[in-house]
Amino acid sequence: MEVQSYLKGEWVSEGDKSNLCSVINNKPVASLIAAEPDYHSVCEYARNVGGPALRQMSIHERAFRIKFMAQFLLEKKESYYSLSSHTGATRRDSWIDIEGGLITALGLSSQARKNLSDLPWHVEGGAVTLSRKGTFSGQHICVPRHGLALQINAFNFPVWGMLEKLAPAFIAGVPSLIKPSPTSCFLAFAVFRDMVESGYLPEGSVQFLAVDIPGDLLNHLGSQDTILFTGSAATGKKLKSHPSVIEHNVRFNLEADSLNASLLGPDVTPEMDEFDIFIREVVSEMTVKTGQKCTAIRRVIVPAEQLDKTIDALKRKLGDITPGNPADPATKMGPLASDDQSARFSEQAARLMEVTESIWGNPEADGLYTGARVLLCHKPMEVDEVHQLEAFGPLTTLMPYQTLDEAIAIANRGGGSLVGSLFTADDEIAARVAMGCAHSHGRFMIINRSCAGESTGHGSPIASLVHGGPGRAGGGEELGGARSVLHHMQRVALQGSPTTLSAITGQYVKGSTTRESENHLFKKYFEELNPGDSITTHRRTVTEADIVNFGGLTGDHFYAHFDEIAAKNSLFGKRVAHGYFVLSAAAGLFVHPSPGPVLLNYGLDDLRFIAPVYPGDTIQARLIVKRKSFRQKRESDKEPYGMVWFDVEVTNQQKTTVAEYTITTLIKRRTGSPFDQ
Amino acid sequence: MEVQSYLKGEWVSEGDKSNLCSVINNKPVASLIAAEPDYHSVCEYARNVGGPALRQMSIHERAFRIKFMAQFLLEKKESYYSLSSHTGATRRDSWIDIEGGLITALGLSSQARKNLSDLPWHVEGGAVTLSRKGTFSGQHICVPRHGLALQINAFNFPVWGMLEKLAPAFIAGVPSLIKPSPTSCFLAFAVFRDMVESGYLPEGSVQFLAVDIPGDLLNHLGSQDTILFTGSAATGKKLKSHPSVIEHNVRFNLEADSLNASLLGPDVTPEMDEFDIFIREVVSEMTVKTGQKCTAIRRVIVPAEQLDKTIDALKRKLGDITPGNPADPATKMGPLASDDQSARFSEQAARLMEVTESIWGNPEADGLYTGARVLLCHKPMEVDEVHQLEAFGPLTTLMPYQTLDEAIAIANRGGGSLVGSLFTADDEIAARVAMGCAHSHGRFMIINRSCAGESTGHGSPIASLVHGGPGRAGGGEELGGARSVLHHMQRVALQGSPTTLSAITGQYVKGSTTRESENHLFKKYFEELNPGDSITTHRRTVTEADIVNFGGLTGDHFYAHFDEIAAKNSLFGKRVAHGYFVLSAAAGLFVHPSPGPVLLNYGLDDLRFIAPVYPGDTIQARLIVKRKSFRQKRESDKEPYGMVWFDVEVTNQQKTTVAEYTITTLIKRRTGSPFDQ
Repeated sequence: MEVQSYLKGEWVSEGDKSNLCSVINNKPVASLIAAEPDYHSVCEYARNVGGPALRQMSIHERAFRIKFMAQFLLEKKESYYSLSSHTGATRRDSWIDIEGGLITALGLSSQARKNLSDLPWHVEGGAVTLSRKGTFSGQHICVPRHGLALQINAFNFPVWGMLEKLAPAFIAGVPSLIKPSPTSCFLAFAVFRDMVESGYLPEGSVQFLAVDIPGDLLNHLGSQDTILFTGSAATGKKLKSHPSVIEHNVRFNLEADSLNASLLGPDVTPEMDEFDIFIREVVSEMTVKTGQKCTAIRRVIVPAEQLDKTIDALKRKLGDITPGNPADPATKMGPLASDDQSARFSEQAARLMEVTESIWGNPEADGLYTGARVLLCHKPMEVDEVHQLEAFGPLTTLMPYQTLDEAIAIANRGGGSLVGSLFTADDEIAARVAMGCAHSHGRFMIINRSCAGESTGHGSPIASLVHGGPGRAGGGEELGGARSVLHHMQRVALQGSPTTLSAITGQYVKGSTTRESENHLFKKYFEELNPGDSITTHRRTVTEADIVNFGGLTGDHFYAHFDEIAAKNSLFGKRVAHGYFVLSAAAGLFVHPSPGPVLLNYGLDDLRFIAPVYPGDTIQARLIVKRKSFRQKRESDKEPYGMVWFDVEVTNQQKTTVAEYTITTLIKRRTGSPFDQ
Repeated sequence: MEVQSYLKGEWVSEGDKSNLCSVINNKPVASLIAAEPDYHSVCEYARNVGGPALRQMSIHERAFRIKFMAQFLLEKKESYYSLSSHTGATRRDSWIDIEGGLITALGLSSQARKNLSDLPWHVEGGAVTLSRKGTFSGQHICVPRHGLALQINAFNFPVWGMLEKLAPAFIAGVPSLIKPSPTSCFLAFAVFRDMVESGYLPEGSVQFLAVDIPGDLLNHLGSQDTILFTGSAATGKKLKSHPSVIEHNVRFNLEADSLNASLLGPDVTPEMDEFDIFIREVVSEMTVKTGQKCTAIRRVIVPAEQLDKTIDALKRKLGDITPGNPADPATKMGPLASDDQSARFSEQAARLMEVTESIWGNPEADGLYTGARVLLCHKPMEVDEVHQLEAFGPLTTLMPYQTLDEAIAIANRGGGSLVGSLFTADDEIAARVAMGCAHSHGRFMIINRSCAGESTGHGSPIASLVHGGPGRAGGGEELGGARSVLHHMQRVALQGSPTTLSAITGQYVKGSTTRESENHLFKKYFEELNPGDSITTHRRTVTEADIVNFGGLTGDHFYAHFDEIAAKNSLFGKRVAHGYFVLSAAAGLFVHPSPGPVLLNYGLDDLRFIAPVYPGDTIQARLIVKRKSFRQKRESDKEPYGMVWFDVEVTNQQKTTVAEYTITTLIKRRTGSPFDQ
């Protein structure tokens, strides 16, 4: 296999050739062709070809393409597994990278379709009325930035790292320039090649840069570009303070490894389930990916009185684990990823050993197949190195604490971590520790016996939750569902008349003029409904008999509806109709009884009862198409459909709004789509 | 008046003394005592005294304190106006700074109370179920960072700039270290002194640094600190790339002036209202604050065929305006803010004049009382300087365009702007220009005759909308309602069992264990209700008679309820009860009929009809206290109350959830509060 760059729509087959070797047998896995591109034209290609191609699609279309691409790759996963073992990964390690990465891409696609507009841009939140008469309003929208996203990935998760950065940029409408780590780039390349082959990613939306040092690339970045960097804090800071990055205010997201801590609660004794769960988690985090994870547990903080028992339990558990060939299914831990990584690990471990006591492992066992190591720091509040120096391998340092406040202080001495965890059966302790540690963490996990079985684990970032941490961890934020997409967009506050804002956003903005429909809106198919289409219903006079009948039928005899005396003293001053009656009567006004395109009304949001309805008042409803969203037809669906949100306004005879809300409906589409199943 | 620093809870009266002179008469307005503080201890005081004091309050309490402080300052506004004229500000200029600043603080307080949790932290969004059985969930919360917010303000808005930065930090629970511009610091000081006197800001939550160069201050900042800088791009970038800022990943928000553009649509002719509105806005933005506004219109982009008429109209309008004494009510434009500013303006204007034609104003009129100037750039796509060089004074450059695409390209050549605007009567043009410019703007305003009367203007940031722009404008984001508060918080993803997450967040998390109440929840006062308190109602069998009666009463005869034949072919397979009946019957199950603490149910959110209810099904409801929020009693209120949100779950005889939603209620408090009116 030849690992080539993919630039300006072409595979680059010219360039210096070198071998990429397996960490298992040191034999070549692939050869690397080092491109020497003209970075200016590479960047311009992304901006001028990829950007426009992406921006003409809706967010949902881009998200669907990520979904279908991930499904396409899932079919080919076994070929990735066999390559992955040459990076030193066991089957379990590879699962996290390969399937973990594909699941993350699928999750981000689904979150984007659930939470973002089905338009090329996202309409964020409701409109803000900025004037008394309502002629001038504001509306935030998020639009794709017109630059590129330079994604610099770390060696340890060549697939996951590539996908968790690519998917949000792509869904946002921003082209990606992917720079894999040289150490594992043959695996990233194999996946990337299939991504291109899938046909789902339009020309220019992805480029792949298989070179070690990206030359003068940074000089060509501008104010609409973004850098997403995962790797060592030192390299990250160098790039972040690059003159060109500073000069153009290039967005920079830094995700560095950190000295993540795991705490054992003071309530937990060795007899409790939580103790075993804790030991299992620590050992798992030490050995998965041979400890080469930015989220691994580097500091194990335990009550002083449980220190000996913790050491015993860790020794017992670690005794089972010898590093070996990752391709062998019996192997629980593979080698380090490369000779470089191994040298770095040995050096870092040696420096930590100067200030700690060695509890487990052979300090002389240098090399790729280093075993797990446990160090002990007796006075963690007095030793800086254990909170600053990271040995990126299967090593953790035990730290005893006396009081809960001290445990919290030790955890926070990491100076900012990607993740922390606490094992406790006591929710009061959970609350104290979580609130004591929250400001210095991007994620914090609390485990007890009730949730341990289903826990996703200390080390696993989740597509729907943010990943990143303050300070030492880089101060960045990735993932977190739709948030990850918004990082690639420009938030802009639009101001103008509601009608103009509707025309710009493609969504109905309250106060905008509407188009009264000749046919009932519920007789129209998905394709025929447009934001701003409206119907105004006939009227209905609400009478005392309605209140009596509604109370009798529903059992709701609240005094404001039925007790003249109490109602007189209430906010209302006299008996009022039930709010739920107004809601139900409004449906009676706007529902069309015959079978038609409307399949069902499945939700209602943002209902506000604004003014009371008294017996004798006459109400009327107006239904306005607010926004729409395509839905993929699944095999189990009889017919294709989409979602339509209608704004409902119920007014009385003085044209005063008495209630307003939004209903969500499923409405049949006239035609199928290539995205349907 | 002596302008002193306020550090570590004390006024600093020792230090080098110098005079601060009026720009009107060059006489001393105040003397400045330059403190020489130990910055390490100043920072530690904020972190160790101010931070903890703020963090023990809820977000709402902090927001109330900002509100009351602003109201306290509003009483003293006339004393600020008289000082403000010595900065060169006319009454109108001062209004923007002083009342504009106080209105912004009040707006941010109100937005925070409306949108953020009434807890010391904010619980963001709903919980995310991360497991099949629901034992393991995720919940984002935003907690105050444990650092300080260093706020470096610009000279042009000493009051607005101070308040728009202080309010979000304070409400977030982060102490402020305010560094005013020396040029106008006597006005900032006068307001700050009253802020301290108001008594609403706890010790350590605000400090004031009246020194020109903050020495080695930046060396003392750490990973929990934030810098918010408004001023020149050059200084901002120097601070942003400071080694200490890079090393600790100090959060940095840069807001720099930019080359904002205003466009006249190709549809607008001189006979149209939009033309006059456009000319008025351009002249207003040139002259307000003598053009010293980071949001001022620096580039005026007009159709080539309207260039002559635009020039004529601008000349007519500018002919009225001569700079003069700002204290004189007849003066429409005051002097520049200082000799330094005046020298800088002359130099920048001279450089722009090298590449443009001078259309209006006397290029020789250097000095403080420089008149307004209009330049003309005939070929704006060929001249770089007009898009890069900012003359910070009453100067703007006219740029003709041939096509709409060219107009958009000219606007975007600013390389990132705080704000842009378009004057057009055609919403299709509005949509094209707004979407063409959105990615390079933080705010974009579209004006036509229908909204001009109520428009807040091109130059005015609004508390509820974001302020800041990409690239040249700094890439930062301020204001935007509750967003401004979240910038000072750390977002952390909590993971654990729903019950643990409820205990940590102080809010009911779906799936958590609940405490079944012995008394009906609607008989309890605000203070007696706690998240997780629940009641389970009696049951009710839904019958065919219910459907008939409900349809008859409401008029809702949708086929799924009434037409056996059509219902058979629908998603439901047979006739179902109305969703609104299930909702109304649930209220009948949980409402308590007697007068009690519940004043009203005024809203309903997030309703989902999850499963159909068929005749013969038996439903039951469960009401759970989800969260609470204190509300200030106003004079018009009879009694004090708070808001309580209840989660409602309606289940059938198989314990399947058929509907779930949240209701919002107003519930009486037992006692008053010092925050009540």
